[in-house]
Amino acid sequence: MTDLNMIARNYIAAWNESDAARRKALLDAAFTKDVSYRDPVMQGDGHDGVAALIDGVQQRFAGFRFSLKGVPDGFADRIRFSWNLGPEGTESVIEGTDIGIIEDGRLKSVTGFLDKVPVQ
Amino acid sequence: MTDLNMIARNYIAAWNESDAARRKALLDAAFTKDVSYRDPVMQGDGHDGVAALIDGVQQRFAGFRFSLKGVPDGFADRIRFSWNLGPEGTESVIEGTDIGIIEDGRLKSVTGFLDKVPVQ
Repeated sequence: MTDLNMIARNYIAAWNESDAARRKALLDAAFTKDVSYRDPVMQGDGHDGVAALIDGVQQRFAGFRFSLKGVPDGFADRIRFSWNLGPEGTESVIEGTDIGIIEDGRLKSVTGFLDKVPVQ
Repeated sequence: MTDLNMIARNYIAAWNESDAARRKALLDAAFTKDVSYRDPVMQGDGHDGVAALIDGVQQRFAGFRFSLKGVPDGFADRIRFSWNLGPEGTESVIEGTDIGIIEDGRLKSVTGFLDKVPVQ
């Protein structure tokens, strides 16, 4: 059985993990090898591609943490979950919603949308 | 240029159209021939498949109308829009969000999620 909560938790944990070895294990748990990631500002493929995106976000938003917002939902091979990003313990600065396609219990593709962005 | 609003409007109009000929024109405008539609309760492929889903919803929810909720957003070949369904002029009974992949200005795939469902 596909555990939507586990997939979403591994996903969020990977985005928060700055240690390469620990993150590799989370990427292995969350994504198929050929995962495709697309959102309005970046895209990457495979575990290395996603890891590079995570590195970029961690550098740009130093000290920020991702957290799950609400409860993941899904059906068949589809999942949807929302997230917050911001300094720990304060109101989120950025919020988004990701839609994924699951294969063998892992994310094969992720499409991200932004729900809240900072005023420019 | 892909017109996200036009795609979403054609989509909603098709779901509200009970005349087969008029709906065919809306399906042609909104979907590629090989469109794939998936949501938590139904799935269909191609214009005929989607038309059958629409017929089913119109029979089940006679008198209800779909309307766009908010403004469609998107990037690259992805679109997201939300909708309301209910008797015209009253609060919506069902709400959902659809994510699509666009090809040549039409929806090639649609993944639907439910945001509000009636209490059982």
